[in-house]
Amino acid sequence: MAPFRTVGDIGERTLLAGFARAAAASGPGVLIGPGDDAAVIEPGATVLSVDTAVQGRHFRLDWSAPEQIGARAVIAAAADIAAMGGTTTGVLVSLAAPADSSAEVLIGINAGVVNRAAAIGAAVLGGDLVEASEISVSITAVGVLDAGGPIRLGGARAGDVLAVSGPLGASAAGHALLAAGGVAPDGDPQGRAVVDAFRCPAPDLQQGPAAARGGAHGLTDISDGLVEELALMAAASGVALDVDSAAIPVTDAVAAVAQRLGVDVRRWSLGGGEDHELLGAFGAAAQVPPGWWVIGAVVGSREEAVHIDGAPTRLHGWRSV
Amino acid sequence: MAPFRTVGDIGERTLLAGFARAAAASGPGVLIGPGDDAAVIEPGATVLSVDTAVQGRHFRLDWSAPEQIGARAVIAAAADIAAMGGTTTGVLVSLAAPADSSAEVLIGINAGVVNRAAAIGAAVLGGDLVEASEISVSITAVGVLDAGGPIRLGGARAGDVLAVSGPLGASAAGHALLAAGGVAPDGDPQGRAVVDAFRCPAPDLQQGPAAARGGAHGLTDISDGLVEELALMAAASGVALDVDSAAIPVTDAVAAVAQRLGVDVRRWSLGGGEDHELLGAFGAAAQVPPGWWVIGAVVGSREEAVHIDGAPTRLHGWRSV
Repeated sequence: MAPFRTVGDIGERTLLAGFARAAAASGPGVLIGPGDDAAVIEPGATVLSVDTAVQGRHFRLDWSAPEQIGARAVIAAAADIAAMGGTTTGVLVSLAAPADSSAEVLIGINAGVVNRAAAIGAAVLGGDLVEASEISVSITAVGVLDAGGPIRLGGARAGDVLAVSGPLGASAAGHALLAAGGVAPDGDPQGRAVVDAFRCPAPDLQQGPAAARGGAHGLTDISDGLVEELALMAAASGVALDVDSAAIPVTDAVAAVAQRLGVDVRRWSLGGGEDHELLGAFGAAAQVPPGWWVIGAVVGSREEAVHIDGAPTRLHGWRSV
Repeated sequence: MAPFRTVGDIGERTLLAGFARAAAASGPGVLIGPGDDAAVIEPGATVLSVDTAVQGRHFRLDWSAPEQIGARAVIAAAADIAAMGGTTTGVLVSLAAPADSSAEVLIGINAGVVNRAAAIGAAVLGGDLVEASEISVSITAVGVLDAGGPIRLGGARAGDVLAVSGPLGASAAGHALLAAGGVAPDGDPQGRAVVDAFRCPAPDLQQGPAAARGGAHGLTDISDGLVEELALMAAASGVALDVDSAAIPVTDAVAAVAQRLGVDVRRWSLGGGEDHELLGAFGAAAQVPPGWWVIGAVVGSREEAVHIDGAPTRLHGWRSV
């Protein structure tokens, strides 16, 4: 008999990869199945993805307003659609909550979902509500592909230019600041900026279709931190990636909060997730859409696939935040 | 300031109705939005629904094998697609679990999802895995409409015949038998039949498209018990419904287990959920598909919308199982 293994022993990524293999027998209308940012099916190249946020892990009611929690969940799911080069047209909401939860909190989360969906041009299509021991919100995003899509995670090619669609690390900086006690009492616009970014990131999701129109070879959203997404893109593409950490954009607010907390800002720009900006591989610098930042290059495969500033980096284990 | 209200105070149905109203501003490609069994969108009249099962509420690991838990979650979501007259072509899976969960349990749940999806002709399109304090599995089902669909919950008309697609109460009987100690040690085929029905119901989901082709006016799946679904159909259709409890089909196994446990079998056939058979309103008895049972009639609206054996019935409050 096999020894008892926990989810933590195996790791989320390994388990999900096994799930994707188990599901590999895909049907006739499936253009892209599990393992990428989102699935693409017929009819009409419909794009689908699901993302779940859990109280205490992904959000805290004392750190975020209910509306922010709902809005953030929409962005997380819609960013997966953008990462295929698609536009989100609708969302389904599954809310779980204890029966003694505040109804106002759930109404607020739902309002955040509805309002943010409307802001990105998506309709709320339905959902369900179940009893559970903690609050969670699961969003299924459905979208359509733009011209040029779908752009796969595994499409990066040696010789490509690597670029990101916006500054990184603000959500991680906001989380760190809240954990350290929050914004300063008077003013503190820099603290507020990063805390706002943690409470609800606001990536420009139209950069996904823009990357597709620009002919991106590979595309994903940065939900689990840049280094982790680089490792996934490298593995899926069979290539290696070289990144210059000084080229990764960070806002002045992130830099200032890093200095205030005595943190190397690269900890957030390289390791922090939840900004939901996009990482793309483009055939030439001229194909990188306006407003993106070039951060490195795609090279031929090697044992240690991801190099930051010339040195290999690795990540391991269960990470679900 | 509004008094503090819990989810339990307000009730799941009332809260969901409020969510549906909040989402009412639907987009241009939305053919059917929230409030029905599933949403229908363009392109291609794509049908979408989500359903979540939570450990301790919807399943117990000591009562069901992991594969059964996964299979049952697929049926629950796919039944919503059938209830619009559609066929499920794909599912997305969101699994939540503590980091110290058995990986084999999660792999088993996923295998149940994959196998049951394949059995109904659907592909597993993707999913996510998050850390939570209990195991839950959320399935988003996506499907296509058959000729005749979509069939709305609110389409029943006075003069229609009410019918169900299969015997009811087996899942509730199985739950009751497990709660009473399980099947008898020797044989007990009747006990096994109802416990199997609880662990994983096996409705014929092709009866949804069959009802649509037959010209059903109203259609829904019986996930929360017949009386609750009757109340929803009556409210959505602006009609009243008369049901003859003796006409509701129950299997011999359900009748035998009811007798064994000293339970009025109507408690399960009228109140038990999770069988996921379909309830339809048809313009004439001749339109009821083969294999369905006529259980009552649709009449003009009145204050107490649902009458069972000539007497009004009511249901209240939070019910999420």
